[in-house]
Amino acid sequence: MDPEVTVLRLGHRPFRDKRLTTHCALASRALGASCMVYSGEKDTSLEDSIRSVSRRWGGDFPIRYARNWRKELSAESTRVHLTMYGLPFQKHIPKLRKSGPILLIIGGEKVPMEVYHSADYNLSVTSQPHSEVAGLALFLDRLYKGKELLSIHRDAEISVVPQKRGKLVRDRT
Amino acid sequence: MDPEVTVLRLGHRPFRDKRLTTHCALASRALGASCMVYSGEKDTSLEDSIRSVSRRWGGDFPIRYARNWRKELSAESTRVHLTMYGLPFQKHIPKLRKSGPILLIIGGEKVPMEVYHSADYNLSVTSQPHSEVAGLALFLDRLYKGKELLSIHRDAEISVVPQKRGKLVRDRT
Repeated sequence: MDPEVTVLRLGHRPFRDKRLTTHCALASRALGASCMVYSGEKDTSLEDSIRSVSRRWGGDFPIRYARNWRKELSAESTRVHLTMYGLPFQKHIPKLRKSGPILLIIGGEKVPMEVYHSADYNLSVTSQPHSEVAGLALFLDRLYKGKELLSIHRDAEISVVPQKRGKLVRDRT
Repeated sequence: MDPEVTVLRLGHRPFRDKRLTTHCALASRALGASCMVYSGEKDTSLEDSIRSVSRRWGGDFPIRYARNWRKELSAESTRVHLTMYGLPFQKHIPKLRKSGPILLIIGGEKVPMEVYHSADYNLSVTSQPHSEVAGLALFLDRLYKGKELLSIHRDAEISVVPQKRGKLVRDRT
């Protein structure tokens, strides 16, 4: 997908955040982001479960831990921080489509003010409290104009054959 | 918002699912759904936290527990079950906009096959494993054509004033 999006998840806590960070990673993968970097505490079981999904369901979605998230900001990317305090994201999507690789920063419970100041854009998906999973999903869907919904992983071991009712999985292993 | 959407969250487990169900409820509220019903185990702290958000941030977003989710299906609504095994949701959105109130069913870990058979539509937001929070967010955004992003709660005690950098909250209390 173009532009390439790296999702940077801040402040992961294995006990409290495992399922939410997993949902962030899986939604990022399913909706066209290229990879995820996370900071906070290292969590090998999180990494293993995302790698296992990628291996079985196809595509390439690396996930890695960053001890120091500040070093990730130095990449040659446009830094977009999703926050309910920011400007409406939908107005900024058209120019972000043309601005090269994006580092999409999503917070945990407490985001240091430094993040707000380091970001090129602080953008909100509504100005209401809700969910970083919902926020990144809407951001990616608007950025890619829904084309991400059509992507197919030809290297998948297993894939779903969409059904009106029930479940049908094609297993190539 | 029109059509009216009630979100039915199945199989809530207070210990394991609290934060995910909270995110489902908050994203539903922020993106224009009318209310949430949840089954599984009753969780008063979940209910209290959603009611507290609604009271402070405005609008009316009731949440209630249903011991028997089957009774909720009897309502005069079109039943849409979000599942990765279903048909691509984006193709069905246009007719759902005209079909009256919607009961949007989102599962927990294991959804009984009965749900697939009771639903009028089993719809997928991609055929990949990801997140019910992302799924319902994209469903609501497409259903309401992005108009839900512009809604304002005039009765809010607190609201965000969008900023390029930093946080500004208007407090009317």
